[in-house]
Amino acid sequence: MDHEEFRRRGHQLIDWIADYRATVAKRPVMARTEPGSIRAQLPSAPPAGPEPFDDILADLDRIIVPGLSHWQHPSFFGYFPSNGTPASVLGDFASTGLGVLGLAWQSSPALTELEEVVCDWLRQMIGLDTAWQGVIQDTASTSTLVALICARERASHFSLARGGLQGEASPFIVYTTRHSHSSVEKAALLAGFGRENVRVVAHDGAYAMRADALAEAIAADRARGAVPCAVVATTGTTTTTAIDPLKAVGAVAARERVWLHVDAAMAGSAMVLPECRWMWDGIESADSVVLNPHKWLGAAFDCSVYYVRDAAHLVRVMSTNPSYLRTAADEAVKNYRDWGIPLGRRFRALKLWFLIREAGVEGLQTRLRRDLENAQWLAREIDAAPGWRVLAPVPLQTLCVRHEPEGLAGEALDRHTLAWVDRMNQSGAAYLTAATLDDRWMCRVSIGAIATEHAHVEALWKGMNNAVETGD
Amino acid sequence: MDHEEFRRRGHQLIDWIADYRATVAKRPVMARTEPGSIRAQLPSAPPAGPEPFDDILADLDRIIVPGLSHWQHPSFFGYFPSNGTPASVLGDFASTGLGVLGLAWQSSPALTELEEVVCDWLRQMIGLDTAWQGVIQDTASTSTLVALICARERASHFSLARGGLQGEASPFIVYTTRHSHSSVEKAALLAGFGRENVRVVAHDGAYAMRADALAEAIAADRARGAVPCAVVATTGTTTTTAIDPLKAVGAVAARERVWLHVDAAMAGSAMVLPECRWMWDGIESADSVVLNPHKWLGAAFDCSVYYVRDAAHLVRVMSTNPSYLRTAADEAVKNYRDWGIPLGRRFRALKLWFLIREAGVEGLQTRLRRDLENAQWLAREIDAAPGWRVLAPVPLQTLCVRHEPEGLAGEALDRHTLAWVDRMNQSGAAYLTAATLDDRWMCRVSIGAIATEHAHVEALWKGMNNAVETGD
Repeated sequence: MDHEEFRRRGHQLIDWIADYRATVAKRPVMARTEPGSIRAQLPSAPPAGPEPFDDILADLDRIIVPGLSHWQHPSFFGYFPSNGTPASVLGDFASTGLGVLGLAWQSSPALTELEEVVCDWLRQMIGLDTAWQGVIQDTASTSTLVALICARERASHFSLARGGLQGEASPFIVYTTRHSHSSVEKAALLAGFGRENVRVVAHDGAYAMRADALAEAIAADRARGAVPCAVVATTGTTTTTAIDPLKAVGAVAARERVWLHVDAAMAGSAMVLPECRWMWDGIESADSVVLNPHKWLGAAFDCSVYYVRDAAHLVRVMSTNPSYLRTAADEAVKNYRDWGIPLGRRFRALKLWFLIREAGVEGLQTRLRRDLENAQWLAREIDAAPGWRVLAPVPLQTLCVRHEPEGLAGEALDRHTLAWVDRMNQSGAAYLTAATLDDRWMCRVSIGAIATEHAHVEALWKGMNNAVETGD
Repeated sequence: MDHEEFRRRGHQLIDWIADYRATVAKRPVMARTEPGSIRAQLPSAPPAGPEPFDDILADLDRIIVPGLSHWQHPSFFGYFPSNGTPASVLGDFASTGLGVLGLAWQSSPALTELEEVVCDWLRQMIGLDTAWQGVIQDTASTSTLVALICARERASHFSLARGGLQGEASPFIVYTTRHSHSSVEKAALLAGFGRENVRVVAHDGAYAMRADALAEAIAADRARGAVPCAVVATTGTTTTTAIDPLKAVGAVAARERVWLHVDAAMAGSAMVLPECRWMWDGIESADSVVLNPHKWLGAAFDCSVYYVRDAAHLVRVMSTNPSYLRTAADEAVKNYRDWGIPLGRRFRALKLWFLIREAGVEGLQTRLRRDLENAQWLAREIDAAPGWRVLAPVPLQTLCVRHEPEGLAGEALDRHTLAWVDRMNQSGAAYLTAATLDDRWMCRVSIGAIATEHAHVEALWKGMNNAVETGD
C-alpha cells in the first residue's frame, strides 16, 4: 500500500469510524455472541497472497463489529467508562501514523519532552505539588506492579543488586484491603512477595481501609520479625468507589517507613474537580500514585499515568544501560525506558495532549460534573423507589444497587439479581456489571461514558424497573 | 468534538499523515534537537479553555515533527526496523476508533477471538507446531518478564501461593549470555532473582551461547545447592544478530528441567522465510518464545507476540478472578487478562490482521528477502573495501561494521568510530547506532525499514565512506 492508497483508504476508514460512533447507540450494548462464533467465521490459515482492502473492511462490518460490546455506547454502564474522545482518538492516530519510538531520548526527543509536559499539566490539573513527576504506563496493573517492586527495593536496600528477594531473611509484607483492585494482589504475587505476605486490612462500613487496623497489622508483623514494606490504598475502589482515608493511612505509613502507593486509577480523573480533592486529602504523604486518563477523563486506551515523588529511586530500580542505547545527551535528559518495564514506547503523550487542548481544563470539568450529577440523580431515584436499595455511599459516578423484593434473601436474592442484570444486558438496551458486595451479588452502575447524557440515565432507570418486573 | 467534526478533522489528519509519510525522506533522519528545546516551546500549564484544533495541528508541524527521529525514513538504519506499514496503521486506527476493551471475553468477544486467530496464523507462518498458543503483549521486555516469572513459579512449585520467592531456601538461577538483550537482566531483577543469580554463560566466536558452558554453569550451581531455573537464549541478538544454538541449548535445558525462553524479538520475523528456519532449529524444545511483529514484520508498535507451550501454567500464574470480571461464558473462552500483566487490553489483533491480509504471507516474504539481500550486498561491499571490516556474521539484516584506518587502535579507534557515526547522524542523511562489541565501539547498520530500497543502502555506503573521509 503506497502513500496515496493509504490516503484513500484512510479517508474511507475515517468515514467508517465516524459512522460507527454516530450510530453506535442503535446497536445492542453488550455482544450477544456465542463462544467461538467469531473464530468460526475466520479462516484458520493466513492468506498466501494479498487480499483486497475492501474485503478487510467488509469483514470488520460483517464479523468483528457484531462481536463487540460497545464501550463508546451511551448506555454503557459496565465496568468503568473507557472514553476514547474524538480528539484523543485523533491524537492516537497521529502517534501511530508517525510511527516513532521512544527507546532513548535521542530516538525521538519530542516524544519524551511532550510526555514530560503533559504529565506535568495533568499533575497541576489534579492538584499535586511540584515534587511529583509522571510517566505514562499502559495500565494501572502495570503501574502498581512497578510501585510494589520499587517498594520492595527500598525496603530491601536494593536486593536486586545482590541475591534478590530470595536472599532476604525476613519476609516483606504488603497491606491492602479486600476492596482494592485485583491487580494489587496480582502485582504482589508477580513481584515475588507471596500470598501469605499480603495482609488484608479491615475496612469500615463504607468499605474504606481502617487506619487503626493497618497500624495493628503492621505492629503484629513487626512483633513476629516480618518487615512491613508497602501499603496500597485506593481512592475510589472498583466495586463501590470507596475512599480510603489517605491522611490517616499516610500517617501510619510515614511513621512506619512503609511505601504508600495510591490507586486512583478510576477516581483520579475526578481530582480535576477542586470540590472532589477532599477524597485524597493526605495524598502528599504517598510515594506513588496511579491514575488512568484512559478511563473517565477520555484519553484513548492505553494511557495510565504513574506519579512518583522520588524519580531517582524509580530510575535506579528500572534502569538498564547497554551501549546501543547510550547517547551523548543522556546526562541532560529523561530516558523513560528507565521509568517502567518496556524498553520500546509509543508516542502516547499525543493523545493526552490532544484531549486536554481540545477540551480545555474547564471543558473536562464540565463533563465530569455532568456525570456526577447523573449519578446523584439516579441515587435519589433509587433511594425513593420501594424495593430498591443503594448499598454504598456514592461519592463519584458508580452506584451499587440491589432490587430486594419482599421475602427474597440469600441465594434466592442472588438468583434474582443475576437474572435481572442478565436480562438487562441481553436486551441490548444497557450494559451493567454484576459484582459481589459483602458476599452477595448486586449490580454496579458505572456512569460516565462520553456519550451518556441525562436522558440515557433516565432510560436506564426505566429499563432496570422493567427488567425486575419481567420476572424470573 | 462531535462525530461530524471528528470526520472532518479525521480527513485532515489522514492527509497530514499521508503527506508526512510521502515526504519523510526529505527530512534529516535523526533529530538534531538540544535537550529541553521542545519542552521550552510548550506552555508550562494546561489551557483553561478549548483551543482550536488547527492550532494543535500547527504545533505538530512546528514543534513536534522537527523534534523527532524518523523511524519510517528510508535511511533509518538505527536500533531495529520498527515498521508501521500503512495497512497496519489503518488496523490500529480501527482499534482506537472502536474504543473497545478486552477485560473479559464478554467485554468484547471479537477482540479475544481475533487475537486467537491471528496469533495462530502467525504461529503457522513461523513454522511452530500446534502445541504453541500465543498472546499479544506490548513489548519483548514485558514478555520476557512474564516468561521468567512463569519459570520461577514452575521451579518453586507456585511459591506465589505461599511465601513467595522470599520463602525459598535455595536461590533460583537464570542463565543467559552477555549478548542477550538488556531486558533479560532487567526482567530477572524485577522478578526478584537478584543480580548474583544471573549467570553470564560464555559465548563462542560468533557471539552465540556455548551449550557446553551452559551445562557446566548449571552443574556448578547444582553442586553448591542452587536451583537452575531458566535459560534465556536468543535467536538474533541485538548487537550482532547472533544465533544461540537452540538444539544444543534445548537439550541441556530439557535434561536439567530448566525453563527455556527464546528471545526472537527481532529475528522471529525472519522465520516467516522457510530458508531461515535453521536459525531456530530446536525451538520445539522451548517453553516460551517471544517475537515482535512490531519490528521488521511491519505491525504498528506495540505488538509483541508471546507463545507458550503450556498455556494452563501461564494462566495459573497470572490469573485473577474478582466477581466483577466473572461472566457465564468464562469456562468456554479465553480471558487474555490471565495471559499477561495488564487487565485492560487494546484491540491489537486488528493491526496484525490488517497487515497479514493486505500483504499476504508471500508479500511479507518478498519484503523480508529484499532486506536480507540488501544486507548481503552491503556486507560484500564492506568486505571488499580496504580499511573497512564486518565484525560478525551477517545471518540477517544487521551488520556490525568498523572503519579501521591503519595505525589506529584502542581508544583512538573508538574516538574515530564514534566521530564518523556522529557525523553521519548529524548530517541527517542516515541514522546508525554506535554500540560496543568486545569492548570496542563499532557501528551497527540495521537494514529493513519498510521504505528502504537497494538505492538507499547504496547511498548509505557512499555516505559512510564520505563520513570517514571528512575526518576527525
